[in-house]
Formats: sequence, structure tokens, C-alpha cells
Amino acid sequence: MSKWYIGAGEQNDVVISTRVRLARNISEYPFPCKLNTKSRTELNNLIESTVMKDNKYNLRFVEMKTMARFEAASMAEKHIISPEFASDADGRAILISTDEDICIMLCEEDHIRLQVMRPGYALDEAYELANEIDDNLNEKFDFAFDNNLGYLTQCPTNLGTGMRASVMLHLPALTISGQISKLQTTISRLGLTLRGAFSESNGTVGDIYQLSNQITLGISEKSAIENLKSITLQLCAQERQAREELLKSMDTDDAIFRAYGILKYARVLSTEEMLRNLSLVRLGSVSKKLDLPLETINELMVSLQPASINVNAGQKLNKFDRDVERAKKVREMI
Amino acid sequence: MSKWYIGAGEQNDVVISTRVRLARNISEYPFPCKLNTKSRTELNNLIESTVMKDNKYNLRFVEMKTMARFEAASMAEKHIISPEFASDADGRAILISTDEDICIMLCEEDHIRLQVMRPGYALDEAYELANEIDDNLNEKFDFAFDNNLGYLTQCPTNLGTGMRASVMLHLPALTISGQISKLQTTISRLGLTLRGAFSESNGTVGDIYQLSNQITLGISEKSAIENLKSITLQLCAQERQAREELLKSMDTDDAIFRAYGILKYARVLSTEEMLRNLSLVRLGSVSKKLDLPLETINELMVSLQPASINVNAGQKLNKFDRDVERAKKVREMI
Repeated sequence: MSKWYIGAGEQNDVVISTRVRLARNISEYPFPCKLNTKSRTELNNLIESTVMKDNKYNLRFVEMKTMARFEAASMAEKHIISPEFASDADGRAILISTDEDICIMLCEEDHIRLQVMRPGYALDEAYELANEIDDNLNEKFDFAFDNNLGYLTQCPTNLGTGMRASVMLHLPALTISGQISKLQTTISRLGLTLRGAFSESNGTVGDIYQLSNQITLGISEKSAIENLKSITLQLCAQERQAREELLKSMDTDDAIFRAYGILKYARVLSTEEMLRNLSLVRLGSVSKKLDLPLETINELMVSLQPASINVNAGQKLNKFDRDVERAKKVREMI
Repeated sequence: MSKWYIGAGEQNDVVISTRVRLARNISEYPFPCKLNTKSRTELNNLIESTVMKDNKYNLRFVEMKTMARFEAASMAEKHIISPEFASDADGRAILISTDEDICIMLCEEDHIRLQVMRPGYALDEAYELANEIDDNLNEKFDFAFDNNLGYLTQCPTNLGTGMRASVMLHLPALTISGQISKLQTTISRLGLTLRGAFSESNGTVGDIYQLSNQITLGISEKSAIENLKSITLQLCAQERQAREELLKSMDTDDAIFRAYGILKYARVLSTEEMLRNLSLVRLGSVSKKLDLPLETINELMVSLQPASINVNAGQKLNKFDRDVERAKKVREMI
């Protein structure tokens, strides 16, 4: 069962993946926080039965209470659901496609959180599919909408388009050269956010960043997507330029191949160390120094975080056993 | 041209090599420090022409002044000559066998410093050959000898047998478990010395130690050899016991395979880091965790130190270029 994140897409030397998320609420119902478990479950079942009439996108309905805690955590690690959604199963459900590229969270902060994911740079494609699914749902439900404000959402930061679009970027050269913090400041002035995707006590790990739009009010969905596209392409160009410099040095070669050696031979491997080494190995792969397919690196990055290791093992392991299991999987895969 | 140190010998899970060295002086001549360059050169030529009459051991005569400084330093790294001998070529020469297992330094501290080396644990074998060569030389020269003191040497610490015998031991488990410093103290009370073979600013590197006899006066050569044999075998037994414990841990496996990964993939590698990783890889090889012949590890350990890298390159490289060259050689060999 191949998942969406295994694929490689456009601009994948820098852009790992694209996500578009729409927040929608059904006008007859109060926001989820105002509903008790029973009402939320009823609402989820209503949405399910309505969607299932045509089930155009081949979605599967799963109540979160039927899922083990570490399975939900694993989905959050893969960004299929939000960490907040994973943390509490009560009155919550998802509608999810087979390869997990479409996921609709029911009774997260809003009634409907529709998300479409794509490998690589695919903002247009992801937005069009999200928009199409949104139209399909809109035929079946009356969404809470105000002519001045746009779509109504529980949190005012989502009012308007209710859309959050983002790309996951691999920026090792901008990180190593120290340009990243200045870029983060500049980008925030443009109404976007660039932040580390994996954070540990000592900052960002693995040189992976999420670039997302922040403004939803007073802007069309299309304009927001165009803004994000333009900044993404500029960041890609800057990263490539910084890489050109970085890759001239024998020390970079050394770092890349050592990282590969560690991944290939370690017997105990923490998530943080894996991500740190995968960043260098990814740089080696896209610069053709290492012969390792990007698909493998993408899969390792997504599928070997703590909760996902537990899912594979079918039980909650302690940290050491997880680190041993992770090292084993990495060796099998590279 | 295969060198003696490529081979593997007895007890080679712990004992890397054996060396027996005899100091002798010719009674008609003052000690080398009392001779000028001309007299030392004359003495060297006399010894050469006398030895070459039968040349029973197939030795080659080389004047140190004909050798590049880094070639002499490389021989010192391989323990074929002493560092002191390598540091000054003036009036000095060697008689050396093809595979470098026999080397006679002429006009080091004494007129004759005869050395025999063997892979693994071979104290009897090395002593017998050294003794045989000594007898052969003694037929040709009248050695300075006192009936009470024994052989006369410039430094009083060599008086008596003039013999220094040693074994090079790999003691990673006794080092990691912290038992080594107590052992060093105990052994010094028995008239032997156990010291790190490769030392850097932060102590012993590579867990390689040299165990040698210190007492030359009032003891026969045979007794000194027997003492050394007995302590060597005891150390081997203790190291093996400590390894058994150490090798139970997954963290040891992890360290061994990471070391292998670094050696296999690094592009820049200092001598110190190479030795540190080779120690773990050697432990992995003798415990059958890694499929890498001991001969390769022995050769890496001896042949890729700084001056030997220069010899291979045919020029004196700077440290960075040496580290790049070393990493390349290591990759080619493992």
C-alpha cells in the first residue's frame, strides 16, 4: 500500500511536499467545542453517510476512538492529522483516502478540516483538488459563510478563506550558511511563516522547514496560493545557490558520506540523529554524490519517527528498543 | 613487497606484534656519542663490509643521510627504527631485511641496536632469531662485555642483557572498563612497563599498549623473556574476559559498526580518528561481528600514519591533504 509521501515531485531537490488545508463549518451546528460527545458523534455520522452516497474520492471513515493512541500519534508524525487532533479521540473521526493524500478531520477545531497532500512542489494541483472536494461537499452541506468575512471558523486566524497552504522545504545550505534566520524575519513581513518542521530542545533538526501562508482574510484563495508559490520558488533559488558554494568543499563531501556511513551501519539510532544524517544524505542524493533514491529518503524521514516505529512493532516500545528498531529499518532500506 | 606487519600471528585477537631488541657495542670503539661523523661513518662501513661477507640474513645497507626526512619518520612510525634515530641522520645507517622484520640501527645510542619483529605473540621465535643474529655478529666482532655487569651499553638502564623485549597489545575492553590504569601500576611493580603506543594530547589513542621488560641487570635474557610471556598471557586472559562482558551490549555493536561506517565512508580522516575507529573495528573483526581480515586492519594501523602518507605521496603534504589521502586509502582497503 504505497503512500503519497513515497513519491517524488517537482522541484524535489528542495521541496519535499505540499499541503493545502481548508477549514469549513456546517451552518446548522455550533462549533465542535460547543458540542458534547454524543452530538459530535452524530454530526460525524451525518457527514460520513452524506459523503458515502457517492464517495467520489474513495474515502474510508475511521472513528478516532477505534485507533490505538500510538497509531494516532503516528498519523500526526506524518502530518496526516494535527497533533492536537491525535491527542484526544473523543467525538472525533476522519475520512481518509487509501494512499493518505486526502484526509478530512471531523470535529477538530472546526467541523471539517479538509487536507490534500502531494509530494514535491504541487501547490496548484493540491489546491485544485482541495477546491474540487470542497465544492463537492458544499453541494451536500450548507457551509457557515458571511458575505463580508468569508468562511466562518472557530479561530479568527482562519476566517476568510479558511485556507492554510504550505510546502515542506529542505534547506541545509541556507541553514549551514546561517542565512535562514534573516530569511525567516523577511518572510514573516510578507505574511508567511517559515519554521522548523522538526524541533528538539536544541533547535531545528534535519534542516526541514515549513513555509505557510498566514493571511486568510481579505485575500482570495488563488492570491494566497500565488504568493506562496512565488516565495517558495525564490527560496528554492537561494538554497540552490548556497548549495553550489557548500558543495565545493571536501568537508561537505566528508559530512555527507559520514552521515551515509552512520545510517548504513548504526545499531542504535535516535529520531534526531536519523533526521540530522538524512538531511546530509538528501543533499548528497540530489547533488548526485550519493546513489540513493529520494523516495527512500522521503520514506525514512516520514515513517521512522517514534510513534510510527511503535505502529510497525504493534506495541509501545521503550526509547532504547525503538532506537534499535529504527537502526534496523534504516539498514534494511538503504 | 609484503612487510612483516601484514601477517597475523598467535594470540592475535589481543597481541598485535612482538619485538626483541639487543644493544651491543664493539669494544675497540668509544660509544657513538664520543665519535665524530667521520669515525661513525667509518665504523658503519666496517660493520657493513663485515656483515656483507656472508650476509646470512639478506640485509640491505642504507645510510640515513640518503633517506628523505619523511621516509625516516615513516620507518619510526612503523617502529622499525627509533624516533630519536629518525630525527638525526648524521653518521647513522641501518642494515635491514626485505620485509623489514630485521633491522640493525648503526650508531644510534649504541653501535649496534639489533631488532627483530614478528606479528602476533612470538616472543620465543623473535628472541631465538635475535639471539642467532647476535651470535653471528659476535663471531665477527668483539662486543664490550664485563663479567659482572654483562654487555656494556651507553645508558646504564640497558646494562646486562642489553635486551628490551616487548609485545604490542590491543586492550579495548580493559580500557573501556577502566581496569587499565590499575593494571599499569601492578605491572610496573613486576619490573615491566605497560604504556600507550599512540599518545595524543588527550591520552592514549586506539587502545594499543606496549608491554616491555624494564630489568636488564642481574637477570638472564631467557628469564626476562619468560617473565614477559607470563604477564602477556595473563593480560590476554583478562582482556578476553572483559570483552565477553563488553560484547553483550548492543551499544558495543553500535560503536563497532559506526566505526566501520566512518572508516568506509569518511572523506577526511585524521590519524587519531582512524586509530580510534580501527580499535573498535579490530574488536569487531576478532569477535566475528565484522567480516574484515585482521591483516587489513594491521596494515591500516601501521601504514597510514602521517609520515607514511607522505612517503606514499612522494612529498610532504599538509595536514588536510594527508587526512584526505588517508581517508581515500582506508576506503580502498576496506
